[in-house]
Amino acid sequence: MHTAAPILLTPGPLTTSARTRQAMMVDWGSWDERFNQLTASLCEQLLAIINGASSHHCVPLQGSGTFAVEAAIGTLVPRDGKVLVLINGAYGKRVAKICEVLGRRFSTFETAEDQPTTAADVERLLKADPGITHVALIHCETSTGILNPLPEIAEVIARQGKRLIIDAMSSFGALPVDAQKVPFDALIAASGKCLEGVPGMGFVFARKASLAQAAGNAHSLAMDLQDQHAYMAKTGQWRFTPPTHVVAALHEALLQYHEEGGLPARHQRYANNCQTLLAGMATLGIRSFLPEAIQAPIIVTFHAPKDPRYQFKEFYERVKAKGFILYPGKLTQVETFRVGCIGHVTHVDMQAAVDAVAQVLQDMEVLDI
Amino acid sequence: MHTAAPILLTPGPLTTSARTRQAMMVDWGSWDERFNQLTASLCEQLLAIINGASSHHCVPLQGSGTFAVEAAIGTLVPRDGKVLVLINGAYGKRVAKICEVLGRRFSTFETAEDQPTTAADVERLLKADPGITHVALIHCETSTGILNPLPEIAEVIARQGKRLIIDAMSSFGALPVDAQKVPFDALIAASGKCLEGVPGMGFVFARKASLAQAAGNAHSLAMDLQDQHAYMAKTGQWRFTPPTHVVAALHEALLQYHEEGGLPARHQRYANNCQTLLAGMATLGIRSFLPEAIQAPIIVTFHAPKDPRYQFKEFYERVKAKGFILYPGKLTQVETFRVGCIGHVTHVDMQAAVDAVAQVLQDMEVLDI
Repeated sequence: MHTAAPILLTPGPLTTSARTRQAMMVDWGSWDERFNQLTASLCEQLLAIINGASSHHCVPLQGSGTFAVEAAIGTLVPRDGKVLVLINGAYGKRVAKICEVLGRRFSTFETAEDQPTTAADVERLLKADPGITHVALIHCETSTGILNPLPEIAEVIARQGKRLIIDAMSSFGALPVDAQKVPFDALIAASGKCLEGVPGMGFVFARKASLAQAAGNAHSLAMDLQDQHAYMAKTGQWRFTPPTHVVAALHEALLQYHEEGGLPARHQRYANNCQTLLAGMATLGIRSFLPEAIQAPIIVTFHAPKDPRYQFKEFYERVKAKGFILYPGKLTQVETFRVGCIGHVTHVDMQAAVDAVAQVLQDMEVLDI
Repeated sequence: MHTAAPILLTPGPLTTSARTRQAMMVDWGSWDERFNQLTASLCEQLLAIINGASSHHCVPLQGSGTFAVEAAIGTLVPRDGKVLVLINGAYGKRVAKICEVLGRRFSTFETAEDQPTTAADVERLLKADPGITHVALIHCETSTGILNPLPEIAEVIARQGKRLIIDAMSSFGALPVDAQKVPFDALIAASGKCLEGVPGMGFVFARKASLAQAAGNAHSLAMDLQDQHAYMAKTGQWRFTPPTHVVAALHEALLQYHEEGGLPARHQRYANNCQTLLAGMATLGIRSFLPEAIQAPIIVTFHAPKDPRYQFKEFYERVKAKGFILYPGKLTQVETFRVGCIGHVTHVDMQAAVDAVAQVLQDMEVLDI
């Protein structure tokens, strides 16, 4: 029985290290030179992860990841642009909703939640509608954990002379993307995901040439990434009050990211977490929703047990009492629950989580899995 | 000579208590019932400060205070509305800029930075332009520290059947506003100001009836306060990932706010800080920019010494080395610097800051004040 705070097996906010949280014990002056250096170091380290320093700017933004996604669409898609939104889950739908609210023209292409979008689909869609200027893709769709084939799709889009906006919220830092090999106009992520910071800020890697042409596009003052970048380039400061403690925590989390071995090591740890989870749950008879080939090592969707004695709420509370916070399913057709593989956790924690699930199912007398 | 982190005498981010920062040492699941309770408790406590539970909703929002200001304008001003923006400093100008970017019609009324807007001005302006639907006012303009006469202006606006949006960023929690006596549609503030939380979220007190009519107004998905509130009312959760650690810190800061004695005690402490600062600087010959009658006890603007040996950058660095972070001036016509009176500091700290300034001016051989 755990007495400490439960481990978050959720796709962000997630479990952070004590060292990362400890970095929030200092109050920083947002105008002070030392804080400017922190921001600059942060952006430099983030750009290095995608090998993007020569081609892209890193523009940090206050708020959740969705704020950064909206900011990227609003800033980089001209008012007369048109976005093709590729959907196989809730986050793809959210991008379409953003286009609708912002008044950007858009069309959608939706596949089933266990069906990756293919490069052939995208090629066909682009040829059919020359009015499309931008394509929006969710790299790893957190609704299920499905991985979309980013490099292949990016190549098709570039070949057609269109621009790509990638929501890489739940994959950035764990799954490799090289900005010199995968062409994109914007890649968006946030502090509280695979970098294992705390939530409160997002960031957008924006192609330098595209950002330079984006003045006046944005629908919002606060979310204008061109203005945010121009001000920061001139002054070293954020335009509006930054979440100083969140920034400091992310900076500290990045130091640990590098100490661990950077992206390959982070990816390997999460892959081990995912393998331990999948294997463990399989021994309990709990089936994962996605086939392994399209399962990203970020979050796993499991079919809920069929037994009528299974109720998610009770299951959740009992597993939580054993020290692990799970995540509800996000599918409308199938009853599921989700378990995150990311955060400051190892395969040992994942095995302990599996053991807790086994014990809880036994306690609840859930037999028909 | 201080060895600890310097005290921030800035208008936010500011110095917080160790107990408030300590509340960030836990990772919260944003979907978890305990976190929902934290959010609900936060909103309830915030509403109580303005006696607004019967008339207003508290809608928290990710991001800095400016995000919340933009969200309030975008959500509460209908697309065919027109805003009269009252300006006597940078934050008033920012509201006008927001209206411009959002495409809301607006007009401005600007007075000098040491000149409060008067109720008579507002009455005249409203009578002259019946097309105005909303008035935006900065309660305490942080550019100088000037206090605008909110109750009188609010009364005139209500009498003319218009709606008031108040940016109370730097005054909320320290200067009293009673929602049952001062009529307003929105009052906006943020976590990292007089409540002494850390920066990373804002909140808007929105009149219930106005918010209920605001569906479809917003220019943004992330900043749609009507949608944010409706989702929170239904689920208890934030629509998009909340800055969990910032929320927890603000909740802890509010407990301390009440323990201290609530608004009267907070106001008194800041008034004492301000008095100590003004009296101390006066003994050094340093003149404050505003007359005392319109000086809010939030932040004080001082004329820079005339002596050519005075340079703000060196002055700032030397005072910082003694443990205090000051704030640059924000006036274009006059050379000034600013000192905040807010944060987890007392008159003892303010006197120590004055002593540090005295010593630094002597070390710099600044004689002509």
